[in-house]
Amino acid sequence: MITRLNHVAIAVPDLAEAAARYQTLGAAVSEPQDLPEHGVTVVFVVLENTKIELLHPLGEGSPIAGFLDKNPSGGIHHLCFEVEEIGATSEKLDELGIRILGDGKPKTGAHGKPVLFAHPKDFQGALVEFEQE
Amino acid sequence: MITRLNHVAIAVPDLAEAAARYQTLGAAVSEPQDLPEHGVTVVFVVLENTKIELLHPLGEGSPIAGFLDKNPSGGIHHLCFEVEEIGATSEKLDELGIRILGDGKPKTGAHGKPVLFAHPKDFQGALVEFEQE
Repeated sequence: MITRLNHVAIAVPDLAEAAARYQTLGAAVSEPQDLPEHGVTVVFVVLENTKIELLHPLGEGSPIAGFLDKNPSGGIHHLCFEVEEIGATSEKLDELGIRILGDGKPKTGAHGKPVLFAHPKDFQGALVEFEQE
Repeated sequence: MITRLNHVAIAVPDLAEAAARYQTLGAAVSEPQDLPEHGVTVVFVVLENTKIELLHPLGEGSPIAGFLDKNPSGGIHHLCFEVEEIGATSEKLDELGIRILGDGKPKTGAHGKPVLFAHPKDFQGALVEFEQE
């Protein structure tokens, strides 16, 4: 069901500084992309086998604003696993007693694919996103 | 310099439960391996493109004991990037003003290769390990 690690998301207080650091360390970084419907601006750090998403709040009510209030230096925000089929993943999470954030139904994620987030308290304290391949 | 994401490490309060969950979600998991010289027991979750390391404290003075005291449900502990040459990475971190944990010199990591850890306060709040390929 879980196949690949799609990305690791890191919330950062200064997107330009964070991107410059990864670039200085030899990684390819994208231009910043505003995703207003998700309340973030993102820079992709492209590695050979996966990517890091550097996230900065965009607009009012950004889903990462609270995280940066609590962690002003930034921090690792979530992991995203690719899964073959989001419906089967949802059923399996239910069986395991792992709560799904929001109304429990898949949403369209930042890459335009169906996603679910598991409750960190039910998943080793880690915020985990599941994205259909 | 940074080439691949070697692993994401997640500190977990119950290693057997965490491993069983990843297995139920279709990921291949290893048997637990004690690494007494690193103060952890580890289960590898093997994905197609990288791996997750589930860490549990082993023995006295485990480097993850304090993290689990603060985060009793567990949490994402660190990322590990592969680099071509650890000496060049160390110099670049110095240039960027990013502190290296410990005495600043590479150590032998859990995979038997030279590693460095950057100070999270200097690296977007994320604990980042650099491991020579």
